[in-house]
Amino acid sequence: MTLKLFELVGAEDTRPFSPFCWRIRMALAHKGLDAQLVPWRFTEKEAIAPYKSEKVPVLLDGDHAVSDSWVIANYLEDTYPDRPSLFGGEGGRAMARMLNWWGDIAVVGAMFPLIVADIHDHLRPEDQGYFRKSREARFGKTLEEVAAARDSAVAGFRKGLDPMRLTLRSQPFLGGAAPNYADYIMFGGFQWARAISPFKLLAEDDPIYAWREKLLDAFDGLARRSAGYPV
Amino acid sequence: MTLKLFELVGAEDTRPFSPFCWRIRMALAHKGLDAQLVPWRFTEKEAIAPYKSEKVPVLLDGDHAVSDSWVIANYLEDTYPDRPSLFGGEGGRAMARMLNWWGDIAVVGAMFPLIVADIHDHLRPEDQGYFRKSREARFGKTLEEVAAARDSAVAGFRKGLDPMRLTLRSQPFLGGAAPNYADYIMFGGFQWARAISPFKLLAEDDPIYAWREKLLDAFDGLARRSAGYPV
Repeated sequence: MTLKLFELVGAEDTRPFSPFCWRIRMALAHKGLDAQLVPWRFTEKEAIAPYKSEKVPVLLDGDHAVSDSWVIANYLEDTYPDRPSLFGGEGGRAMARMLNWWGDIAVVGAMFPLIVADIHDHLRPEDQGYFRKSREARFGKTLEEVAAARDSAVAGFRKGLDPMRLTLRSQPFLGGAAPNYADYIMFGGFQWARAISPFKLLAEDDPIYAWREKLLDAFDGLARRSAGYPV
Repeated sequence: MTLKLFELVGAEDTRPFSPFCWRIRMALAHKGLDAQLVPWRFTEKEAIAPYKSEKVPVLLDGDHAVSDSWVIANYLEDTYPDRPSLFGGEGGRAMARMLNWWGDIAVVGAMFPLIVADIHDHLRPEDQGYFRKSREARFGKTLEEVAAARDSAVAGFRKGLDPMRLTLRSQPFLGGAAPNYADYIMFGGFQWARAISPFKLLAEDDPIYAWREKLLDAFDGLARRSAGYPV
């Protein structure tokens, strides 16, 4: 068994920062699977073209290539069924589909304007042009204009996390007593932010803050050992 | 086995309209359990006081009383484990906790201003005073002022359902190939609205519209046979 994971980095190979790649890093650790990590940058389209993908994560399992974090998580669950479950059964797999969309929108999407300018600053100069152009087109504003609003915009981001916050008031993890893929979906976003931005996304008395601390410590501090800012 | 469910009605005993009671009506049907339905009105606090609750649903299972829809769903799952599962395993139960909060906020909470004036019109005259006073205090506006904004506010409601909509583009139900409690959580809100309001919450080409049709037809049309407006 040889697993290889292409994951997004910026100027430094040792600062992986894609929320979607982090979902899979945590899922691999949950399954107790080792993978060789292959640093990949936004502009290196040709490196993953053979695997029919334009984005990472891309997972190679021997000769088999899988892309898209949701598809990869399902692949790992189905291919390694004797290892700890990512979903806790078929009901959990189905419900995680919606939590995945929620995570894309309310965590990753909502946090993006708060950290986008910091992402830019962590890219290699030759990658900054592509990033600025594509992201400014998406926002219809300069990165600096987007960033300027973040001190007031963070309140809306935090409010949007209410369904997650209320859940963590009555159970330690979204997956129940222990974390599962539902947690890694959301944590991927926070780890992405931590990797490249000093901005304080959460108040210290927020139950989500305490939950994030536990995920940073999980798997012998896998996520905390990766390059990042204090949270 | 004698099950009894107190459920919210208005002027007519045959028009139950609480989103939380409908979650349990659907959950009982899913488990294949019959319950005697006891109509209950907002102002009849003394009828359920012996069961230590001020709100419905309240489920009586013989001498045992359970209140709060989430607690009741878990009670049914644990007490009747040999019947069809509401959660599809422990992962599903844990994740349904967050979907329950999401349903409370993005479905029930977000739909409330759109239908609140219609609820009032379906109450007995002697109950309208309590309802108007308590709800106007919550909004800080008259019911009529809240209702006046609904033609424009509905766009925000629909947009907020994106995580659910995107999920239903790739699987027939939130619970997967067949409905489970994740679906009943959200459906309860739509059935609540249907019971008392002619307002069109969903466009006909919305995947959530098609999903709602299937839930209305489930269990021999249990929900569709209950009093309601065309959706």
